[in-house]
Amino acid sequence: MTTLSPTLELACDLIRRPSVTPLDEGCQALMMQRLQAAGFALEPMRIGEVDNFWARHGAEGPVLCFAGHTDVVPTGPLQSWQHQPFDALIDADGMLCGRGAADMKGSLASMIIAVERFVADYPQHKGAIAFLITSDEEGPAQHGTRAVVERLRARNERLDWCIVGEPSSSNLLGDVVKNGRRGSLGATLTVRGKQGHVAYPQLAKNPIHLAAPALAELAAEHWDAGNDFFPPTSFQISNLNAGTGATNVIPGDLTAIFNFRFSTESTVEDLQRRVSEILDRHGLDWHIDWALSGLPFLTEPGELLNAVASSIRQVTGRETTPSTSGGTSDGRFIATLGTQVVEVGPVNATIHQIDERILASDLDLLTEVYYQTLVHLLAC
Amino acid sequence: MTTLSPTLELACDLIRRPSVTPLDEGCQALMMQRLQAAGFALEPMRIGEVDNFWARHGAEGPVLCFAGHTDVVPTGPLQSWQHQPFDALIDADGMLCGRGAADMKGSLASMIIAVERFVADYPQHKGAIAFLITSDEEGPAQHGTRAVVERLRARNERLDWCIVGEPSSSNLLGDVVKNGRRGSLGATLTVRGKQGHVAYPQLAKNPIHLAAPALAELAAEHWDAGNDFFPPTSFQISNLNAGTGATNVIPGDLTAIFNFRFSTESTVEDLQRRVSEILDRHGLDWHIDWALSGLPFLTEPGELLNAVASSIRQVTGRETTPSTSGGTSDGRFIATLGTQVVEVGPVNATIHQIDERILASDLDLLTEVYYQTLVHLLAC
Repeated sequence: MTTLSPTLELACDLIRRPSVTPLDEGCQALMMQRLQAAGFALEPMRIGEVDNFWARHGAEGPVLCFAGHTDVVPTGPLQSWQHQPFDALIDADGMLCGRGAADMKGSLASMIIAVERFVADYPQHKGAIAFLITSDEEGPAQHGTRAVVERLRARNERLDWCIVGEPSSSNLLGDVVKNGRRGSLGATLTVRGKQGHVAYPQLAKNPIHLAAPALAELAAEHWDAGNDFFPPTSFQISNLNAGTGATNVIPGDLTAIFNFRFSTESTVEDLQRRVSEILDRHGLDWHIDWALSGLPFLTEPGELLNAVASSIRQVTGRETTPSTSGGTSDGRFIATLGTQVVEVGPVNATIHQIDERILASDLDLLTEVYYQTLVHLLAC
Repeated sequence: MTTLSPTLELACDLIRRPSVTPLDEGCQALMMQRLQAAGFALEPMRIGEVDNFWARHGAEGPVLCFAGHTDVVPTGPLQSWQHQPFDALIDADGMLCGRGAADMKGSLASMIIAVERFVADYPQHKGAIAFLITSDEEGPAQHGTRAVVERLRARNERLDWCIVGEPSSSNLLGDVVKNGRRGSLGATLTVRGKQGHVAYPQLAKNPIHLAAPALAELAAEHWDAGNDFFPPTSFQISNLNAGTGATNVIPGDLTAIFNFRFSTESTVEDLQRRVSEILDRHGLDWHIDWALSGLPFLTEPGELLNAVASSIRQVTGRETTPSTSGGTSDGRFIATLGTQVVEVGPVNATIHQIDERILASDLDLLTEVYYQTLVHLLAC
């Protein structure tokens, strides 16, 4: 049997801990032990039922923070897995198999090994290196990164750059990094009419008839044109319901649930105002409950993105593509500190699926990418 | 205790038989016994589980038919009734109380008494008098009047005029008669899209967004202007549903249930074609299941309506108003024979309700209206 690289050995150690969200199962203790040995000051932050920690090496700025989560999504049916999800083995095709291999225990292992090496190679490095690790990213995400960021903000902690270990790559390691995410704004719209009998429409007000032109206008609206980094803001109605079930009754109200995925060209207030204007212009009696899931964030080309792109080119020979597509991530919370945030991680093809896996050798490349990024930004 | 009039005595006899639809509970046997004694030829027609009968007096045309039903709607909670629904009593205010008093055992009693008197007074009357009675008007109405009419059509039975005993009056006996009804055409529309994630709308087709402009156009469409007897055709969407319940999923299809109440200015084929054109113009992938509940019918002013109006004026001093408002009735089936059909009956304020009741003395007036109509049309 061949010996595993330090990164793969640590990745397997982490995967074997069944830390289904919001459990941590000792992953953070293992990481903190390694970081302490490397000279980091540790600050565990248990918030509610959630384990988090903050760690730092170096007193001055600029600060490069590695961020990530030790929790994983549930396995689904165990009998469907080719290899048991918490066995952490490398199969005959060289794939590291297990829940969290891609999302994101592999990245955590690469971060630790890269930092250990960097601190050993550059004991007098510039600035500071930090870790912000949570076990509540896959769950409600209330007591995780969001809460830690609030504590850091309260004490004016400086965070210049942040690398989040989310699996950003599409087909090959490093082909895509995420330099932002769209915002997500949800809403439940109620349009009130007046119930009645279909044979006597003059005595009723049909909320379906009243709402249809407004819904058509909302669906056709051009919210913004996007920009170099974001596609245009999109509006989608996911659920639309009206009616009592009876075929001879005009319903009393209509409910539509919709969602904006919005670019940095629109603000929450803009979108809310424009929706209100359209509904008012159609003379509707309406009410909306808004739910903001996340503000958009964007890291424009600059020191961090350049360092990451150069490192990927150096290690893999690939030109990386910055992208803002996909769902939301904890990067949205960290970006509120004014931090440049880039997500750099392994291939995301199997995340949240049965038989989650990544090419084992990609993790060693990822360690090298993180290491070179440290060199670009903090070596002296 | 005062003696009841023959009409009220028979009405009470009928109400005391708890003929909740589709049961007849001997009502028709009682009616047939009376008609046989008056010289009618009887033809019971049990179809499926439903009792119906046809009866006729006189060999030649023109034929005046009395039509009605012995079944009643369910009582609802018995404890809510002031007087038990099948007790048939006249209260201190002179109201005949009981299920079927208005809809329509009172009318059946008036028809029998009027016809008995007329046949006795005019044994050599012109033309013929007929009865078409069912016990399935309040239920599915498949094996009732509709089926009897098909038998009559098959043997070319002549039906010139028909008085249906439905409670047509609004506030005072005879203030309104129904000289037609709107048609009712139902439909279940499915619009197909393509399911997907709200974060990736370019990979999905949102059927709500696709359908909204078409629904708005259908709701705004001017189908016809109605005419002297009918309000304009109305279109109402009663139920509209799309969505998986999840707020991040674009649904795969949308379902709308709608209904036309249509005048004699539109045909079923016209309405179907115009709906199809609108859906096609919006480029939708759609399917509709149509359900025709009833064609519209109209009896324009002529012999029957004139005879009824004159009789009401004679008996009550009131000018009657012909109307086509309200739901459907068995008149729609009879009208397909080319028959002039008018609905003439008591005040409908309490039909289908707890404590159904009518002014007892109105039934004696109704008997007189039916009698005078017979005189106008068939006396010699």
